Amino acid sequence: MTKVRAYACNDTSSQFHPHTIELSDPGPKDVLFDVKYAGICHSDIHTARGEWGPQKYPLVPGHEIAGIVTEVGDQVTKFAIGDHIGVGCMTGSCLSDPDTSEDEVCEQCAAGHENFCVGSGTLWTYGDDRDGNPTAGGYSQTFIVDERFGLKIPDSIPLDTAAPLLCAGITTYSPLKRWGAGPGKKVAVVGMGGLGHMGVQLAAAMGADVSVISQTRAKEEDARRLGASSFYASSEEGTLRSLRNTFDIILCTVSASDFDYNSYFAALKSFGVFVNVGLPEDPATIDLNALISGDKVLAGSNIGGIPITQEMLDFCAEHNIASVVEVIGGDDITQAYDNVVNSKVRYRYVIDTATF
Amino acid sequence: MTKVRAYACNDTSSQFHPHTIELSDPGPKDVLFDVKYAGICHSDIHTARGEWGPQKYPLVPGHEIAGIVTEVGDQVTKFAIGDHIGVGCMTGSCLSDPDTSEDEVCEQCAAGHENFCVGSGTLWTYGDDRDGNPTAGGYSQTFIVDERFGLKIPDSIPLDTAAPLLCAGITTYSPLKRWGAGPGKKVAVVGMGGLGHMGVQLAAAMGADVSVISQTRAKEEDARRLGASSFYASSEEGTLRSLRNTFDIILCTVSASDFDYNSYFAALKSFGVFVNVGLPEDPATIDLNALISGDKVLAGSNIGGIPITQEMLDFCAEHNIASVVEVIGGDDITQAYDNVVNSKVRYRYVIDTATF
Repeated sequence: MTKVRAYACNDTSSQFHPHTIELSDPGPKDVLFDVKYAGICHSDIHTARGEWGPQKYPLVPGHEIAGIVTEVGDQVTKFAIGDHIGVGCMTGSCLSDPDTSEDEVCEQCAAGHENFCVGSGTLWTYGDDRDGNPTAGGYSQTFIVDERFGLKIPDSIPLDTAAPLLCAGITTYSPLKRWGAGPGKKVAVVGMGGLGHMGVQLAAAMGADVSVISQTRAKEEDARRLGASSFYASSEEGTLRSLRNTFDIILCTVSASDFDYNSYFAALKSFGVFVNVGLPEDPATIDLNALISGDKVLAGSNIGGIPITQEMLDFCAEHNIASVVEVIGGDDITQAYDNVVNSKVRYRYVIDTATF
Repeated sequence: MTKVRAYACNDTSSQFHPHTIELSDPGPKDVLFDVKYAGICHSDIHTARGEWGPQKYPLVPGHEIAGIVTEVGDQVTKFAIGDHIGVGCMTGSCLSDPDTSEDEVCEQCAAGHENFCVGSGTLWTYGDDRDGNPTAGGYSQTFIVDERFGLKIPDSIPLDTAAPLLCAGITTYSPLKRWGAGPGKKVAVVGMGGLGHMGVQLAAAMGADVSVISQTRAKEEDARRLGASSFYASSEEGTLRSLRNTFDIILCTVSASDFDYNSYFAALKSFGVFVNVGLPEDPATIDLNALISGDKVLAGSNIGGIPITQEMLDFCAEHNIASVVEVIGGDDITQAYDNVVNSKVRYRYVIDTATF
């Protein structure tokens, strides 16, 4: 048992305060690391505020974690002390479940999709462990992870701007890759927040022609600097109508309940793909005929497995891409949550755990 | 001008009666053929009854047309007199538009997707021509088509069972092909009607393991005979729950307004595709989170271009596949429409135009 400093909230009011957590001793396949930075993802806020169901408090969120390895178990081969390591949304699956033998690994994990484990199930980074005991996320000075769920952060990416790649980066990289963003393709990124600002950079680096569709023109300059060739404000009359039959891929990072999906389908070319990575609270009203005419696609996408997450990190290093962050201290988390909800962050808050 | 015998209805009551239409003289790229059989597609009924908007009457529907060539224009190279020919849902696009020069052909037509022409537009088989004049469909003894929109029906497929391939066949073949139905894939066909009974045969011939999900067990024997290895009745308690995480592809041929799409998404494996070819009248309520978890896909699909339609016909000949039909006369059309709406047809009515 090791006591480590963290930040937690005690209830759905999400007021964060210093907190001490106890970590079990690392196992033979575990890596223990100093967390240097942890990103604040909108889903941390939904979770902490109980918007996705009741939680156990005190709650230590955080699934965009970047740090430096300080200790490795006997059987660890992937990491050495001093390595830069990242942890994203998951820390286990049947792959790392001691009750699952190697030949029982599920088809999804065997294919590198540990995020959709159909064996004993994906273990998310904070919440409950397999026995229902609460686990802490990355708003902590120390973290322990099975080496199979640790990512190698290339040395060229600073740890603060690397942290958000572990969720915002993979959330946008995975669908862009799956649906073929690249040269000759027109990609629209809807929403220019923590996810959107990564989507723009990644799609541009993949060689696509990137447009941003944002509510207002406030972020136009940033969008163009990050790689967008066009910018559209959806609040301006006629914007969507002017974009009929334009895009091969629309990456939608927003989750407003009144979002007009059907108008966006019209902005797709035939065979185009609208991929949604926002998590709306309410069901959407979808005109299926708007998909049928033009063989169009509405796809969901939820992070990615460990292999594609590593690929994304290596891609970011190769293309000199990272998140645009505002580094904050532990005492700033409470206010930061409100700012994220009010779209005031440019573009991701990252907590410096040295301030704990 | 040639006068030919046809069957038409005069209003949305869809009472069919003998009717005479006048065909213009065929042009240099046109093929004139004796229609032998014309299938009755559910969309003929929607159209004739004004359910998809007002129509011009008398209306001669029909877009599943099979016949024998009797005359070819000077510049026709694809067909000769005596050839078996088929016409499906479309008879033109910018490809065949005399006002469009060869170097102005749109990107969709250039890629063989004439059904999604973004040039002067797809011309549907019956309804209006480019000048807004009414055109007749296949419930007629003679039809004229630009050779580029005629399909070669392989001699091994009888013309009566071939006719429905021109719509029901391509409507199901195209999405099964696009989404990778084949060995190792589990495909569910929802609805065992004119479209579904083709989907079962095609997916099985592609090498997939095919299940049918129908409301009742009434068509189980037929489904198995046509290639299904499993059959599920959706009206039986718990059916959908028992199918969680089962299918790679669900081909949905139904269009009921109360259809529970979200339960079917749960029956998909991760990365699975629910492809909808039914045309529901009302928008659907879609839980986007049910697509996000598992990177699932909701796709629409609307027939296919000429190249893939020809490919489908050749595939059917190779695999000895055709529609299961009930051949009827012109005087039976009115009753047949009611029977289709009441799911009483096994599985496609085909009109023998010799009865006109």
